[in-house]
Amino acid sequence: MPSKPVNPDLQKERSTATFNTREFSVLWAGGEERFKEKKALEKMFLEDPALQDDLPISYLSHKELYEHSLRKACIIGEKIRKLRADGEDGVDTYNALLGGSLGAAILKEGNPLALHYVMFVPTIMGQGTMDQQVEWLSKAWDCEIIGTYAQTELGHGTFLRGLETRADYDASTQEFLINTPSLSAYKWWPGGLGHTANHAVVVAQLYTKGEFRGLAPFIVQLRDSDTHRPMPGIDIGDIGTKLGMKGVNNGYLGLKNVRVPLNNMLMKNQQVLPDGTYVAPKNSVLTYGTMMFVRCALIRDTAQSLAKASTIATRYSAVRRQSPIDPNQPEPQIMDHTTQQLKLFPQIARAIVFKTTGDGIWNMYNVISGEIEQGNLDRLPEMHALSCCLKAICSADAAAGVEMCRLSCGGHGYMDCSNFPTIYGMTTAVCTYEGENTVMLLQTARYLVKVYGQALNGEKLVPTVSYINDAINQTKFVNFDGTLTSIVKAFQFVAANKTRIAYEQIELRRKQGHGTEVAANLCGTFLTAAADLHGRAFLAQTAYTELLALSREVSPELAEVLKVVLELYLVDACLNRIGDFLRFIDLTDQDVTKLEVRLENCLKRLRPNAVSLVDSFDLHDRVLDSALGAYDGNVYEHIFESTKKNPLNKEPVNGAFHKYLKPFMKAHL
Amino acid sequence: MPSKPVNPDLQKERSTATFNTREFSVLWAGGEERFKEKKALEKMFLEDPALQDDLPISYLSHKELYEHSLRKACIIGEKIRKLRADGEDGVDTYNALLGGSLGAAILKEGNPLALHYVMFVPTIMGQGTMDQQVEWLSKAWDCEIIGTYAQTELGHGTFLRGLETRADYDASTQEFLINTPSLSAYKWWPGGLGHTANHAVVVAQLYTKGEFRGLAPFIVQLRDSDTHRPMPGIDIGDIGTKLGMKGVNNGYLGLKNVRVPLNNMLMKNQQVLPDGTYVAPKNSVLTYGTMMFVRCALIRDTAQSLAKASTIATRYSAVRRQSPIDPNQPEPQIMDHTTQQLKLFPQIARAIVFKTTGDGIWNMYNVISGEIEQGNLDRLPEMHALSCCLKAICSADAAAGVEMCRLSCGGHGYMDCSNFPTIYGMTTAVCTYEGENTVMLLQTARYLVKVYGQALNGEKLVPTVSYINDAINQTKFVNFDGTLTSIVKAFQFVAANKTRIAYEQIELRRKQGHGTEVAANLCGTFLTAAADLHGRAFLAQTAYTELLALSREVSPELAEVLKVVLELYLVDACLNRIGDFLRFIDLTDQDVTKLEVRLENCLKRLRPNAVSLVDSFDLHDRVLDSALGAYDGNVYEHIFESTKKNPLNKEPVNGAFHKYLKPFMKAHL
Repeated sequence: MPSKPVNPDLQKERSTATFNTREFSVLWAGGEERFKEKKALEKMFLEDPALQDDLPISYLSHKELYEHSLRKACIIGEKIRKLRADGEDGVDTYNALLGGSLGAAILKEGNPLALHYVMFVPTIMGQGTMDQQVEWLSKAWDCEIIGTYAQTELGHGTFLRGLETRADYDASTQEFLINTPSLSAYKWWPGGLGHTANHAVVVAQLYTKGEFRGLAPFIVQLRDSDTHRPMPGIDIGDIGTKLGMKGVNNGYLGLKNVRVPLNNMLMKNQQVLPDGTYVAPKNSVLTYGTMMFVRCALIRDTAQSLAKASTIATRYSAVRRQSPIDPNQPEPQIMDHTTQQLKLFPQIARAIVFKTTGDGIWNMYNVISGEIEQGNLDRLPEMHALSCCLKAICSADAAAGVEMCRLSCGGHGYMDCSNFPTIYGMTTAVCTYEGENTVMLLQTARYLVKVYGQALNGEKLVPTVSYINDAINQTKFVNFDGTLTSIVKAFQFVAANKTRIAYEQIELRRKQGHGTEVAANLCGTFLTAAADLHGRAFLAQTAYTELLALSREVSPELAEVLKVVLELYLVDACLNRIGDFLRFIDLTDQDVTKLEVRLENCLKRLRPNAVSLVDSFDLHDRVLDSALGAYDGNVYEHIFESTKKNPLNKEPVNGAFHKYLKPFMKAHL
Repeated sequence: MPSKPVNPDLQKERSTATFNTREFSVLWAGGEERFKEKKALEKMFLEDPALQDDLPISYLSHKELYEHSLRKACIIGEKIRKLRADGEDGVDTYNALLGGSLGAAILKEGNPLALHYVMFVPTIMGQGTMDQQVEWLSKAWDCEIIGTYAQTELGHGTFLRGLETRADYDASTQEFLINTPSLSAYKWWPGGLGHTANHAVVVAQLYTKGEFRGLAPFIVQLRDSDTHRPMPGIDIGDIGTKLGMKGVNNGYLGLKNVRVPLNNMLMKNQQVLPDGTYVAPKNSVLTYGTMMFVRCALIRDTAQSLAKASTIATRYSAVRRQSPIDPNQPEPQIMDHTTQQLKLFPQIARAIVFKTTGDGIWNMYNVISGEIEQGNLDRLPEMHALSCCLKAICSADAAAGVEMCRLSCGGHGYMDCSNFPTIYGMTTAVCTYEGENTVMLLQTARYLVKVYGQALNGEKLVPTVSYINDAINQTKFVNFDGTLTSIVKAFQFVAANKTRIAYEQIELRRKQGHGTEVAANLCGTFLTAAADLHGRAFLAQTAYTELLALSREVSPELAEVLKVVLELYLVDACLNRIGDFLRFIDLTDQDVTKLEVRLENCLKRLRPNAVSLVDSFDLHDRVLDSALGAYDGNVYEHIFESTKKNPLNKEPVNGAFHKYLKPFMKAHL
């Protein structure tokens, strides 16, 4: 990878690592074969000159960025066609190209065609009848039509039943009339909707024979296939600049008496017959499946964000020197400051734990969705509850972690050439989309309170909440001896008690005369706190189980490092919730100090391998796209090179001097 | 202010307020006279058509934004000239126009001329001799020359002694030779340096007669007065795009054998005589004064950021409806969700407390700097320690609070038309500039550990740390009865114990054989935690004293509201550090639950006045610049209007369709 000599400080870090980074890189990629596939894809996409940027995109205006993004999106689309023709278009490839790190290396502010591949096509596959799939899929796969998925509205997001867009069936013409009856009903946010897609799946409230039937999806043509002009009744455009995802062409859509044929309603789950008779879906839980799928995938994305940010900040911290520890010594690598270690190393540990948990819950999802397809819905609520709170916790922690990494790089982290602003923009978005985090935590909490009541009635709970059974029979946590097992057990004990309190507080308010729902709203902050601890207990448990299992499969050197990562993760997680631990478990001031000293010790033990750990994430320089984080560590040179691309610096004197500044300065002369 | 009918939900909130918002607005502005001045300045600046934007600046490229910013900066400069001619250019006016809310309303991404007024001119005033002031000041005031202040370097920030730029005195020509001897020595970051300023105060390591003398400031001409071309030996430009402050024209500067006359060294504090003899400064502490001054001012800025963000989010939360609390009822205003209240109301309370503390510490600064000028340095270390940790805490809390407000607005907060991304960019920058926050906390901690040792030796400490004396004589905190006084006292007890632990841990490591400095570095996380609690104890104490004092001066209705704000602030602050409280004070699980229920109760009591409280901050719609936060609350209309300004929406079909998308879609036909 390196084109220039590697910075000597960084080189030294690498030469003193105690484990083999390639071994960990292969593990991280998911095995030798996946590792090789990853490298091949990187070669195919990142070495294509048509996909390089001469000018960093932060210098483009919004309009220029869209045009730039669409150009590259079409090149990627062409390559996907080729991969498809060669039978090499697996799910992993799509993930890497459209949502993953490879996609971010090419279009770091997002791809205006992404929703076509990840939402439009899958929705037709999942909700279209066989006939509808025949009609639409080949056109969609070949990109003769480009689609998006239009659900959220200007005035309506998470609460789907609140959507206003309506579809009225007209049996006389066998068409639906689709309307956004008010400004707040305008579809808002879909990627690619602005100027890119010519079709969309539009979700609307269905009415047939004058009766309301619930939500249904409709394929609507938005733009003329040839001229790309909006179809009659379609008011459409780009919603404007944003904190991140700046190239996605998020759009708005108003519909006024837009007529679509009967067969444009996707009818796999529910049907409207030509005379307007409505046939309800057999099973409404199926939609949960997709949501869980997406949320599980997001957990892995958050790990990737943390991996990127911690790689940049760790390499920078090995190169940057500042503030002598001993006034008689030269300035040290800033990574030698304990305070800096506490900013960076927990993010590295979290990246590894979130990845491991993401993989684990992915497997769990596959098992459970297999059961669901067999008609066994037993574990659906448990899985739903878990995916909700993990999505919320991992996205919030990842966003905070990215910012911590940025801030740890001082002023230089504030420059776009560090790439932190873009990584943050992409990461924090996950806190809001696919279910806003607070809503997610409340959904988990609703489940927890319910099973808490069951446990009080003596019922035995399913695996991921069975710790509540244990805690109910245990008024005191006795064996906190500081071992990792006891930290994990303590997390579960604390989580159970947070759920107990939420349960008790709701009961109390019910006794005070409030209805259940109002009582739950009053206790909202108790509920979100309980869900937070449930997720963290699961993360602690999974980190413990999975990382120990992994360390039995790898070389002793890597195993040793993974154990330090695990200990750091658990001790740090515990100290971050020490208020809850002290509330429910008898710990003294000295016990807490011991944990704090142990954290310091973990940081010290991780220090020699910090650079090699982030090297193991094996993120291509193009993926990092950071002057601070390049593999060669020539930080100042890369920063300086970036100024040479700045269009402002192409002329020694900017025109605004003559136009505005000179007249102002000479006004009194 | 309203041009359209006010949204009825918002109108209802206003009509049910229990206090008079104008009374609070006047208080917030600093009295009736200041309130009127503020309104007059707003009229003069915000109603000038030349200072309006037709196109939101988020749609401009970096280069366009610079040119736009310079144009407006010159108009502002012209108005400042006029105010100066009329004798109306007080410090408050400069603050409002260059750093404050009015400046942000005109140039929300910063002013490339700001450093000329707030750093270049004051540095000449503070560090130039009388003769030098005569020579430079009138030119600078008249803007015949435009300056900036160049201190930090590409490789060197907070640790000033590490700067590499050097000035060698050549007695034969009576000139200094100024050089940046390496890439890492390049000056980096100064606002306006890129293409705007033609002069700078350059801070360099001074050498005379071959000997090193320490840092000194030099006035260096950067660009030709007429052509604006860089002077010989000057390598200069714009550092590139950033997370925020995008219009500031931050620049870089390399100097190669640049000769400046002897008299260009600012010599008020130290002198170089023509033969090269060096006369050292009498008092090196004087530079602390400026730093303290700036940090105290920053505390007020953080209050302003929180005021802006909480105004936007609170108004939006009164208008937005989502997710029924009771499934049989319509969707409520999202402000009725307790979880939403917990996101918003603590930010409102923090804005008020930070403002009050900022005013308080400003007065304290004035008293102490008066003492310093009299030669009495007794309270300098205390004041320095306090200004450091408060700068760190207030900026970190404000940045987190702004993000919390943004996230509380769901997806719409992510759009630039909400203005949250810009507010965040400006606010989070404060965490890094004028002393990076961790470095700030370590400086405070160094002081705390020192006075802790003194207290152990029986010395009586100065006022702001005298709580350490109390705590040393008190092994147990006995009277935690939940009253506000006891929360304040408990904060101090906890803070004293955090300092005790830091002190003990350093001692322990010294006994293990480490030198003091290495021991302190190992204990870095103990130290920053102690400084954090010291600042929070001071904030709690100040909030208590000042808000109670205020509530005795105002109407009973407003007094009642201020008391709720105070209680909310203290209970929330306590729960946010509950781990520390439980560690040092005997509190039961039930005690904590009581505090949590009390927090819920405070939220409920603040709810009816939330909108009127933020209305009282009296932020002009141009200052807020937010589709979500406008006074009239027509949220969806404003968002939709913003899309009409988007250049992408000026044409129904973007050119990129014909160029890229159509050929891609038709490739197989």
